[in-house]
Amino acid sequence: MARMVQKYGGTSVGSPERILNVARRIKSCHDDGNEMVVVVSAMSGITDQLLGLAAQVTENPSEREIDMLLATGEQQSVALTAMALHGLGCPAISFTGAQAGIETDGVHSKARIRNITPDRIEKSLKDRQVVIVAGFQGRTNEDNITTLGRGGSDLTAVALAAALKADLCQIYTDVEGVYTADPRIVPDARKVDSISFDEMLELASMGAKVMQSRSIEFAKKFGVVLEVRSSLKDVPGTIIKEETEDMEDVVIRGVSVDKNEAKVTLLRLPDEPGRAAALFNLLSEQAINVDMIIQNVSENGLANLSFTVPQVELGKIRNRLAKRIREEVGAEEMLFDQEIAKVSVVGIGMRSHSGVAASTFKALADAGINIEMISTSEIKISLVLRLKDADEAVRILHANFNLGGQ
Amino acid sequence: MARMVQKYGGTSVGSPERILNVARRIKSCHDDGNEMVVVVSAMSGITDQLLGLAAQVTENPSEREIDMLLATGEQQSVALTAMALHGLGCPAISFTGAQAGIETDGVHSKARIRNITPDRIEKSLKDRQVVIVAGFQGRTNEDNITTLGRGGSDLTAVALAAALKADLCQIYTDVEGVYTADPRIVPDARKVDSISFDEMLELASMGAKVMQSRSIEFAKKFGVVLEVRSSLKDVPGTIIKEETEDMEDVVIRGVSVDKNEAKVTLLRLPDEPGRAAALFNLLSEQAINVDMIIQNVSENGLANLSFTVPQVELGKIRNRLAKRIREEVGAEEMLFDQEIAKVSVVGIGMRSHSGVAASTFKALADAGINIEMISTSEIKISLVLRLKDADEAVRILHANFNLGGQ
Repeated sequence: MARMVQKYGGTSVGSPERILNVARRIKSCHDDGNEMVVVVSAMSGITDQLLGLAAQVTENPSEREIDMLLATGEQQSVALTAMALHGLGCPAISFTGAQAGIETDGVHSKARIRNITPDRIEKSLKDRQVVIVAGFQGRTNEDNITTLGRGGSDLTAVALAAALKADLCQIYTDVEGVYTADPRIVPDARKVDSISFDEMLELASMGAKVMQSRSIEFAKKFGVVLEVRSSLKDVPGTIIKEETEDMEDVVIRGVSVDKNEAKVTLLRLPDEPGRAAALFNLLSEQAINVDMIIQNVSENGLANLSFTVPQVELGKIRNRLAKRIREEVGAEEMLFDQEIAKVSVVGIGMRSHSGVAASTFKALADAGINIEMISTSEIKISLVLRLKDADEAVRILHANFNLGGQ
Repeated sequence: MARMVQKYGGTSVGSPERILNVARRIKSCHDDGNEMVVVVSAMSGITDQLLGLAAQVTENPSEREIDMLLATGEQQSVALTAMALHGLGCPAISFTGAQAGIETDGVHSKARIRNITPDRIEKSLKDRQVVIVAGFQGRTNEDNITTLGRGGSDLTAVALAAALKADLCQIYTDVEGVYTADPRIVPDARKVDSISFDEMLELASMGAKVMQSRSIEFAKKFGVVLEVRSSLKDVPGTIIKEETEDMEDVVIRGVSVDKNEAKVTLLRLPDEPGRAAALFNLLSEQAINVDMIIQNVSENGLANLSFTVPQVELGKIRNRLAKRIREEVGAEEMLFDQEIAKVSVVGIGMRSHSGVAASTFKALADAGINIEMISTSEIKISLVLRLKDADEAVRILHANFNLGGQ
């Protein structure tokens, strides 16, 4: 008997039949004697449909009204899920974010949860009801409806689990858990039984398909044990939790790849203090997130500097910044390269096992794959290489660290 | 400069283009310096779509969850209407029923408004914002979402007009106002400029197409001046208000017809005290609304009794009650007749003008139309006649009281 929070995404509740499937699973957990709080997203497709309507009445909708509009999607899902449970003979009650006591700040469309007052949920749990809460939404203390932005339903689930001191927060999704690598690239990739918050955060590019960093950080901060599992198959998923000692026995947890980055190189930059600062100032003014930065040794007082950014930001840099970068930072030439990929090897075991970097470089060198940029953290080594080499590099590293099979 | 409440039905906001039309009209009233509170219904079709989803997850949905589900329809409309106004450069803010301070009892799916706390609306009006309120919904003092049942958005508008002491409550619909008769039956039927609450209530069968009795009664109780007008054409509609002296100058306000009633006749009933009581007790146990009741003079200690009920109730009477009526009430025979219609002549002028009944009967007799039942109130004469004669009777009476033309 445990207190559990479960979260089902839009695909899991995307049709009446799927809602009934979800309801059956919830009922079975409830029948086992667990206290159940369930967070659901809007049925898949609804949000886009509503945004389409909004776009037809105005080009530039106010964010308050967009929140008012979008919040209806989750409200519909919770009502339907509660009805489905009733139909199965399981007591249930649905709540909007506001009714569930989720208070946020007033930043519409990407509000932050400030406080949760779960009195009403506690009372319903005491009455042995399954509590269904609308994900992705809350209300301000002026009683306006807010939404939490991308990945908001995960955040609702994690925050409720923290506020309710739940034993476990299960995130149901369309994958079975976190894998040692993308199974589409590495056929013998293995589902990871458990992983630490920090590793999960470092695997963000891989993990993003499963959960957003924001929710993982929140879970880490409040010590909420997460399980990512499949809403289609009833098999154990991946537990994400505080690092435990035995986790260090595994040197490498997984290998991820990110093909959505681009590399920008400034050639022949005067090697003087303040040049890099001027550059990254310009980028941050445009709210461009820079990932890796490499500057090579100086030659004749001139340096070459490379950095990676999300591909979608390239246009901004070309159109709005290229001229200013040449003039204000002083680079003689700029190169843009989209044909790259970032491959990362992640594991907290790195801290206590030496030679991981050397082994990584050697494995790739043996295969004739060139490394263009390197960046390391305590528990991660990231490499930028040619896009065409990326999948092969993932397979080589996955094999090199014996991550495959059972 | 006035304080106005406007209500737009589901058809008026049935598409993005229509929402934009409504927004233009609202903006123009706002630009004239009026304080504007606007109640909107769900976009036409949405409610049925949501009920369809509910039917697919359970056969017997809980009314609390149905309210939770359906309330999203109006929430979407208010958000889209506010956005459309923003797009036109008109300040506006949308509220759910709960945010607007509409408190109801806990009878889900047909809640009654208990109290309105319009502080937030008043504040927004003071800021010169147009306030858009979701119709049809409210919340209980336990913070559950309720809906008000059929005609609920009209009721929201009337109740807000009362709470805000509005100068006028305009009900926008797809007709231009209240007519002296149905224009499809009487080609020269005329739009009525103003009508008293009581006349409007007596014309319910005609008026129901425009507004439900419940909202008219509410308006009467709180002295809210109503105007029913077209959302398509910008022309004055019909004002519904407290009776004024000059209203009595017009003897007859209009002629209505109701083709949805049926007549039930009990033959050879013992003419003893308590028989009628027993009959209507049985009917009220089944929540059957009886309209007209006629009992003829007794002959040989046996009476014949006829009453009219909505046609949809006939099945209940045949299947559940016929046997008990024969046994417990003692009628020898029961006749069911759906081929009837009720024609009513309504006007507060009747009170001060004699001869209306005589003139009514004579006009029909001259045309060879037989009257089967008669029932009168202070301001109405209702007649039951053959269904096939109904339209002709309406035309004759309309002409007889000179209601046509301008």
